[in-house]
Amino acid sequence: MSRFLSPRFAALKQYVPGEQPQNRSFIKLNTNESPYPPSPEVVAAICRGEVEKLRLYSDPQCRVLRQTLAAHYGVEPENVIVGNGSDEILSFIFMAFCDSERGVAFPDISYGFYPVYADLYGLDRREIPLREDFSLCAEDYCGINRTIVFANPNAPTGLAISPDEVERIVKSNPDNVVAVDEAYVDFGGESCVSLTKTYDNLLVVQTFSKSRSLAGARLGYAIGSDELIADLERLRNSTNPYNVNRLTLIAGQRAVESQSYYYENCAKTAQTRDKTAESLRALGFSCTDSKANFIFAEHSKLSGIELYSGLRERGILVRHFNKPRIDNHVRITVGTSEQMEALVAAIKEML
Amino acid sequence: MSRFLSPRFAALKQYVPGEQPQNRSFIKLNTNESPYPPSPEVVAAICRGEVEKLRLYSDPQCRVLRQTLAAHYGVEPENVIVGNGSDEILSFIFMAFCDSERGVAFPDISYGFYPVYADLYGLDRREIPLREDFSLCAEDYCGINRTIVFANPNAPTGLAISPDEVERIVKSNPDNVVAVDEAYVDFGGESCVSLTKTYDNLLVVQTFSKSRSLAGARLGYAIGSDELIADLERLRNSTNPYNVNRLTLIAGQRAVESQSYYYENCAKTAQTRDKTAESLRALGFSCTDSKANFIFAEHSKLSGIELYSGLRERGILVRHFNKPRIDNHVRITVGTSEQMEALVAAIKEML
Repeated sequence: MSRFLSPRFAALKQYVPGEQPQNRSFIKLNTNESPYPPSPEVVAAICRGEVEKLRLYSDPQCRVLRQTLAAHYGVEPENVIVGNGSDEILSFIFMAFCDSERGVAFPDISYGFYPVYADLYGLDRREIPLREDFSLCAEDYCGINRTIVFANPNAPTGLAISPDEVERIVKSNPDNVVAVDEAYVDFGGESCVSLTKTYDNLLVVQTFSKSRSLAGARLGYAIGSDELIADLERLRNSTNPYNVNRLTLIAGQRAVESQSYYYENCAKTAQTRDKTAESLRALGFSCTDSKANFIFAEHSKLSGIELYSGLRERGILVRHFNKPRIDNHVRITVGTSEQMEALVAAIKEML
Repeated sequence: MSRFLSPRFAALKQYVPGEQPQNRSFIKLNTNESPYPPSPEVVAAICRGEVEKLRLYSDPQCRVLRQTLAAHYGVEPENVIVGNGSDEILSFIFMAFCDSERGVAFPDISYGFYPVYADLYGLDRREIPLREDFSLCAEDYCGINRTIVFANPNAPTGLAISPDEVERIVKSNPDNVVAVDEAYVDFGGESCVSLTKTYDNLLVVQTFSKSRSLAGARLGYAIGSDELIADLERLRNSTNPYNVNRLTLIAGQRAVESQSYYYENCAKTAQTRDKTAESLRALGFSCTDSKANFIFAEHSKLSGIELYSGLRERGILVRHFNKPRIDNHVRITVGTSEQMEALVAAIKEML
């Protein structure tokens, strides 16, 4: 760090994204991207005419996209905020609803960005341990008097809790915001969007990066009460009002309008996931009951790092987390069935 | 605001961007966009194949674009950070290099986002008045022991100071970061990029939104010492490591590679600006000696708001700032010569 950096960031540990190799071509199962391209409607919409219009700013209010999302989810545009990926929205949530008086709580094993945001904003944080089997227990979050953030389904475990359990958490913390990160919900979880109509302290965060095949377009959103969304808008307008670029606004709108294409992809992914998990179990793996587009697996004879390295040598990238409790696991994104057959073949070779 | 929002944001005044009308078509001279489309190379590069690749995340290190920018400016990639518009970079600068111990200073009349960032991060700020003629006087910034941010050319005045004057400010504040916002430099200012090799406390911020016709793609960058850039990277990686989307990375790269197209556009804009200012002066306006892609003008018989409203009724959008010292002015973006002829005709009608 330079001598100019504010000392409050001296110990800040940056988030480490999964490898994004730019040269060598891998079977890339490490960052939970979709193996399927965006819908034909999205591809057709990013046309020459729209590229030429890049000389003009995007709509800072993202009206059309917010209306489209609102109609899809049965809420009003005032209940929707969109961001430059759901990471930006999560960052706003930590910034808006936590401070020196109000700390934050999240699971000890979850999206690796939550502790980074907590450190970035200098927050008192409580990491609540998942149970031995990696399940998230609603009871652990009841009445804890903190802003609460968790992923459902959780990452990298893939385990989901029911909307009833989420409701229990939300209800028992009426004076705190509960943010449910539903990045992976479309692959088998149950969304809590409808609960946002009942509870003014619930925010549901989703993304176009996974089920809607738009990781590289950077688009996320949150749904919640008018007031919570207005708070987040206030931060958005005070950091980067033109936070979503023109082409991404169009891609997002067209994606929601061609939702049936994505439903099919999600169904294929869930099927491929379950079939692959079965093959892995037959090879001696234990896998969680993942509801996401990844498999979380460990093997009694191969350590997490051995799995990661052995697969990498064989041209397959998976994600390994060097972190207590899960360092013997790997997280494997569900690709096409051909890719997963290649994965299983590579593992057989290693065993 | 909701009862959940941290009280530190209770009084936060959001930035108000210029109108971006989505329906009615105006001659749009209010947000300093380029009247010319992106270069043919940019338009050709955003092809079907690249849109299909949106399923994959962008390169979080933005390697190709940073290399391309570094080569263009004669620096190393480690001296360049790119962001989701220069607004994001400016936000990082306020966050990284200011805190409760180190306040910030900027001109009283300048980019309207500076006070917003200062409030967002709860900073002690000093607004240094421009001189009576709106000129920025280097002396006022010497040895002031604060982080310093100013636009050069300044907005909305269009007035520029020389690299020698910037150097004087930078040299006299060796323990503080000086950030020079060169959003408008390509239309007639002199850049200070080369000074970043000598001074480890200087950051130069630029954007693709104006001279490179990519406002809607959202792309900005800063150039500075390895250490300053590493500090900003730390914040980028702790908020949104995939902050620039795939298509914008490509557009940015191609734009720098087709720089001669943009040089021509800038020359046209400067010519149109000077010709229009001359016409306006002949109609009784006083205009600053703008080096940017806008004209800053006032008239003795028409107030700023009258000019704004009268032009709006005639289908022409310009920017009016309801702010002491400049509320009698309008800022008029320089469009094509046809657009500027329409502007002059409309004003003649009003007079």
